[in-house]
Amino acid sequence: MRKLKMGMVGGGAGSLIGAVHRSAALMDGQIELVAGALSSTKEKAFASGQEIGLPEERIYATWQEMLEGELSLPEKERVDFISVVTPNNLHFPVAKAFVEAGFNVVVDKPMVHTSEQAQKLVEAVEEREIVFCVTYNYTGYPMVKQARYMVRRGDLGEVRKVIVEYSQGWLAGDVEENNKQARWRTDPEIAGIAGAMGDIGSHAENLVSTITGLEVSEICADLTTFVEGRRLDDDANLLIRYKGGARGVLIASQVAAGEENALSIKVYGTEGGLRWNQEEPNCLIFKPSGAPTQVLKRGNDYLCKAAKGVTRLPPGHPEAFIEAFANVYSGVAEAIRARREGRTLEGDAEFPTVYDGARGVRFIEKAVESGMSEKKWVGFS
Amino acid sequence: MRKLKMGMVGGGAGSLIGAVHRSAALMDGQIELVAGALSSTKEKAFASGQEIGLPEERIYATWQEMLEGELSLPEKERVDFISVVTPNNLHFPVAKAFVEAGFNVVVDKPMVHTSEQAQKLVEAVEEREIVFCVTYNYTGYPMVKQARYMVRRGDLGEVRKVIVEYSQGWLAGDVEENNKQARWRTDPEIAGIAGAMGDIGSHAENLVSTITGLEVSEICADLTTFVEGRRLDDDANLLIRYKGGARGVLIASQVAAGEENALSIKVYGTEGGLRWNQEEPNCLIFKPSGAPTQVLKRGNDYLCKAAKGVTRLPPGHPEAFIEAFANVYSGVAEAIRARREGRTLEGDAEFPTVYDGARGVRFIEKAVESGMSEKKWVGFS
Amino acid sequence: MRKLKMGMVGGGAGSLIGAVHRSAALMDGQIELVAGALSSTKEKAFASGQEIGLPEERIYATWQEMLEGELSLPEKERVDFISVVTPNNLHFPVAKAFVEAGFNVVVDKPMVHTSEQAQKLVEAVEEREIVFCVTYNYTGYPMVKQARYMVRRGDLGEVRKVIVEYSQGWLAGDVEENNKQARWRTDPEIAGIAGAMGDIGSHAENLVSTITGLEVSEICADLTTFVEGRRLDDDANLLIRYKGGARGVLIASQVAAGEENALSIKVYGTEGGLRWNQEEPNCLIFKPSGAPTQVLKRGNDYLCKAAKGVTRLPPGHPEAFIEAFANVYSGVAEAIRARREGRTLEGDAEFPTVYDGARGVRFIEKAVESGMSEKKWVGFS
Amino acid sequence: MRKLKMGMVGGGAGSLIGAVHRSAALMDGQIELVAGALSSTKEKAFASGQEIGLPEERIYATWQEMLEGELSLPEKERVDFISVVTPNNLHFPVAKAFVEAGFNVVVDKPMVHTSEQAQKLVEAVEEREIVFCVTYNYTGYPMVKQARYMVRRGDLGEVRKVIVEYSQGWLAGDVEENNKQARWRTDPEIAGIAGAMGDIGSHAENLVSTITGLEVSEICADLTTFVEGRRLDDDANLLIRYKGGARGVLIASQVAAGEENALSIKVYGTEGGLRWNQEEPNCLIFKPSGAPTQVLKRGNDYLCKAAKGVTRLPPGHPEAFIEAFANVYSGVAEAIRARREGRTLEGDAEFPTVYDGARGVRFIEKAVESGMSEKKWVGFS
Repeated sequence: MRKLKMGMVGGGAGSLIGAVHRSAALMDGQIELVAGALSSTKEKAFASGQEIGLPEERIYATWQEMLEGELSLPEKERVDFISVVTPNNLHFPVAKAFVEAGFNVVVDKPMVHTSEQAQKLVEAVEEREIVFCVTYNYTGYPMVKQARYMVRRGDLGEVRKVIVEYSQGWLAGDVEENNKQARWRTDPEIAGIAGAMGDIGSHAENLVSTITGLEVSEICADLTTFVEGRRLDDDANLLIRYKGGARGVLIASQVAAGEENALSIKVYGTEGGLRWNQEEPNCLIFKPSGAPTQVLKRGNDYLCKAAKGVTRLPPGHPEAFIEAFANVYSGVAEAIRARREGRTLEGDAEFPTVYDGARGVRFIEKAVESGMSEKKWVGFS
Repeated sequence: MRKLKMGMVGGGAGSLIGAVHRSAALMDGQIELVAGALSSTKEKAFASGQEIGLPEERIYATWQEMLEGELSLPEKERVDFISVVTPNNLHFPVAKAFVEAGFNVVVDKPMVHTSEQAQKLVEAVEEREIVFCVTYNYTGYPMVKQARYMVRRGDLGEVRKVIVEYSQGWLAGDVEENNKQARWRTDPEIAGIAGAMGDIGSHAENLVSTITGLEVSEICADLTTFVEGRRLDDDANLLIRYKGGARGVLIASQVAAGEENALSIKVYGTEGGLRWNQEEPNCLIFKPSGAPTQVLKRGNDYLCKAAKGVTRLPPGHPEAFIEAFANVYSGVAEAIRARREGRTLEGDAEFPTVYDGARGVRFIEKAVESGMSEKKWVGFS
Repeated sequence: MRKLKMGMVGGGAGSLIGAVHRSAALMDGQIELVAGALSSTKEKAFASGQEIGLPEERIYATWQEMLEGELSLPEKERVDFISVVTPNNLHFPVAKAFVEAGFNVVVDKPMVHTSEQAQKLVEAVEEREIVFCVTYNYTGYPMVKQARYMVRRGDLGEVRKVIVEYSQGWLAGDVEENNKQARWRTDPEIAGIAGAMGDIGSHAENLVSTITGLEVSEICADLTTFVEGRRLDDDANLLIRYKGGARGVLIASQVAAGEENALSIKVYGTEGGLRWNQEEPNCLIFKPSGAPTQVLKRGNDYLCKAAKGVTRLPPGHPEAFIEAFANVYSGVAEAIRARREGRTLEGDAEFPTVYDGARGVRFIEKAVESGMSEKKWVGFS
Repeated sequence: MRKLKMGMVGGGAGSLIGAVHRSAALMDGQIELVAGALSSTKEKAFASGQEIGLPEERIYATWQEMLEGELSLPEKERVDFISVVTPNNLHFPVAKAFVEAGFNVVVDKPMVHTSEQAQKLVEAVEEREIVFCVTYNYTGYPMVKQARYMVRRGDLGEVRKVIVEYSQGWLAGDVEENNKQARWRTDPEIAGIAGAMGDIGSHAENLVSTITGLEVSEICADLTTFVEGRRLDDDANLLIRYKGGARGVLIASQVAAGEENALSIKVYGTEGGLRWNQEEPNCLIFKPSGAPTQVLKRGNDYLCKAAKGVTRLPPGHPEAFIEAFANVYSGVAEAIRARREGRTLEGDAEFPTVYDGARGVRFIEKAVESGMSEKKWVGFS
């Protein structure tokens, strides 16, 4: 099997998420990293490229050079796709340029800064036969796929209520000065119009949508900045009304001191409830009314096809964050191969698309709008 | 030690909560049950009284007869206090009458139907030197006392955020017809103006107040009735703003199918977080920023005096719901003895008072008001 | 309903277990404590009796006086049963004397010091129509009854393996001097021939027997005394072979520093496994092969009759140690009533009997014998 | 940074462990797989090599051809190390041949079949300046490194007791016929003299040794074959005495129906206890006597250097089995680089060596010897 060739924009020395994308892409032996414009300065870009073993001739100083350079290669040698893992403000220009040049693109979340940008990207993608993925990586967990399967099959009856909570504590203090990650994620020029709401609230929104398919009808948001001098929200609490009458609560905080990466979701339907917690990702808890609680565990034969299809190890040999991320990449790889071979993939795309990305951006905008409004409910459309 | 004499109003055959109050009162051997008006009909009242072994002459047909009967006894033989464990609508007349006759009173929550009634009860209690307790029983758990101690000592720094969640699933279906408990708790004539919000949302409100001392400034509520034909809310989600800037989320649902009695609270301050979960009540989880999570367990020497004072068993020998309830009763018993002996109790009363009861009623009213409002924030005062 | 009259031998001031027995007996309102010989000296016996509110005339200085005193009363006024909660060395003479006088008897574990004593007690009980119970209190937990039900119904298939572990840390240090409980439990004159093995190992043995019904065929024990100067074992590890081929491991330690009261059992059969942990007693974990793990929770309709019959509270309102203990007492009370009324109780006795007590004593003896033997397996008969 | 070149023996189509080794080796981008003799037949070897994208000229039909082929290459192009992931019976000849040819070698556990083979391998390794690793992969978990650090620093005081348990259920049935893994692991010709004891019991032994450094003095084993017709043990229970007086229990079972990969260890010292559970590998539970239990979590600054050094992700972003495996590989890679560059690595080797492998083989032999003995204790030397 020929490995797919990957290029990376961003993700240089000191970037956490760049290394995660690389491990995720590489671990299954289907993808090789062959090109990169890894950093914002030429020196760093080269140092980072060498550090991770890129061939010298494909270490680019800028993403523009990379685009040009790759296009100048014979088609067979070009990267098969690029991953954009820069801070948020670069997602739009980079993704758009590569999409328009016909490359398949993977981009980190939130996809872009504004709905206008999102719309342009949607149109650019729709005009071309390319694969486009937004790395809402939590969708890659097998037990999230199982949750989606069970909710949509109706195991819970009709969904009435969703509680999603994403609590981190790393921004509880005034840490911006010594923490590059903190600095750009709280800088509106780079991060966009929202802080915690954008950075992790959008993961929460996506998780609800992925699992339940519920569509937001109205939201009521309370956004707060607790740390003095911080320019974006670091805490967000939302009431949500979904089309069809379901109710939701969405909590996203980066000042929940003591929490690490506590993303959890509870879904309640007429016939039972379901819980998943990212910090114990191999378990899915199903509580059918009037019967014993069930703990479904990754790797077992009793799981749905989608959950089993993204599992590398037998039950009890835990998989975790990087493997889930890798599942997003293997979905992308499979989609690229399928497109080339003229195959149609069964079922839904097994990774978040440009539409998920656009909806996520819209959700952030509406949450910010609601946060500043005296009106109780802000419509979502 | 002379046992205190207890009378009971309500709690006849088929009442769950009556039996709980009795076990709680009796288990420490400090209280004996000597009189009761246990049911709404004379026949049931007598059958129930005999069933639980009351002396015939102190089985009363009505609470009015009981009041009269007890007053006719020599003071030394009268009940030392009564417990009112009827459906909500009787709390006010019964409690008020006994208070005005000078009896110490324990009454179930929510204390009364309206703030006007609450105010009258507050005044009646203030005019007399009596002990008055509202059984927000979850305050009786040792680890709730420990949480209160730690939050107020400042172990979490300044409190920024509280998430309290009380989810049950027993009203997920249309169960009223065959379930007496369900019937009266969803009947506005009996239960009052709120359903889940009143029945369990008020416990949630009280738990936050007990542990943190935060005062509500504004609330934004979304109250829903999911089960067709039900006359009161069965699901409530609230955003809360506290004085001083803290933020809160309060979730109360009786249609969270699959949940049993999932009351939990998370408190986040500038320096750490804390979690307690009623279904695992012997543990308190403390997450100081930048240090290992701590699991504090009931019965240990390292706990605060208040937590140790209400513990019967060594660590690892779990205590639970009835013991917590019994702690409310032992607090009341101690207060009654102290008053008689002219002793002053150190520190705060170790049980919820008429003021907690009144605030709880107010909170329910404001939540219902907010639920019907188009305004985002309803002030709490 | 007439309350049963209870007398108590031992359990005076400072006794933990005495208070537990009293709470357990009293909490359901079916039993009243009317007489006691609570301590080893006359003064303490009277002080303790007054403290807990016994009528003066039935506070006895010694158990011999109590036996005589009660026999001198009209039969209707006598205690219906006595509870023996003294240190181990008094179990035999007290229990035997009261049994021979025709009283129903509840005695703490281990029942007696030697198999010879046990045999005499068995014979004394068999000669009379009395109720005799040994308080292996963990059998009172509803989820232990559910475990027993499931194992015996065959939910696990044929049982192959049992791992039972009872780890405490309170004797990790040289604490005897300042801890009365520690002192007598490590004194062979009082505790008997074994330390941890006798005190808690016997609970572990009983739990296996109760749940599985397996009969021990051979044992291989390694008993150790870790704390210098201690006269009995404080750590015990046993391999066990059961009749029919099942294998077992039994671990009992009182020097497992950091542990509180960590009694847990795992049973594996041909079709699945099962776990129960005393520190989270409301849950029973069932792991059927090839299907999701199930968490069964106390209070639910799906449980067996025996488990539901000893439950006071709805699901999610946890019950714990004292309630389990109370279930042993309510079983005894029901047996006494049944005997008086000439009723036959359905099914097995719902409390541990003199035979369980005798087997437990035998098990301790064999464990000590094996601990000193060079032979690998010591037969159990 | 130049990537290290890896060759693989075994691990062809259908091999679970081959894929794990590859993911582990590749995920950090430091190693590339360049050669392989992946299967026992020429056809399968080539198909598998192509499947995983090996260059045609370095897909070898046999390990002997691979050895010859690699030696024929210029030294700079040869594999830097090989991984032996065949069934157990080939470990010895393959590892020995490559060691003797001067290659660095990674071999799966148990290292070889007999102590004699182990001794020869030890000597072969000692004669050369090569890196040799046995993939006791559980040692790669950061929290195992933290446990080792804490135990050896004395956080628990002096270690008195260790309970290690490795329970799986996948061999509870007679599954050999349709399960290749089951077939060879229960075949003495291939697996060696022990079944569960060798396959997973040896992991358990290694985990104890890694964390505590305790040396076994005597063992007493009960080995059982539950499934009819199976030729090796499928259940093993051992009492262990360590030098210096500590006591141990080791449980290994592949017929613990319902269990997945339940490897856990508890260590008790004079001052506290410690627990780690492979199925929740990001947590380490520390129970200091008389203080709250601590939950240490991967990724935090408060961990030891060794634990932090093998962590890719921030706290709360879980890592798991493959990452732990990758840590073994990165340790090997670092050792190979260090040797080449003439650097000395600080501290202990961060992966299990030939000595660990040899001790593991010896332990299996002694367990089997004890299992067949009537003597209680078999000395370990």
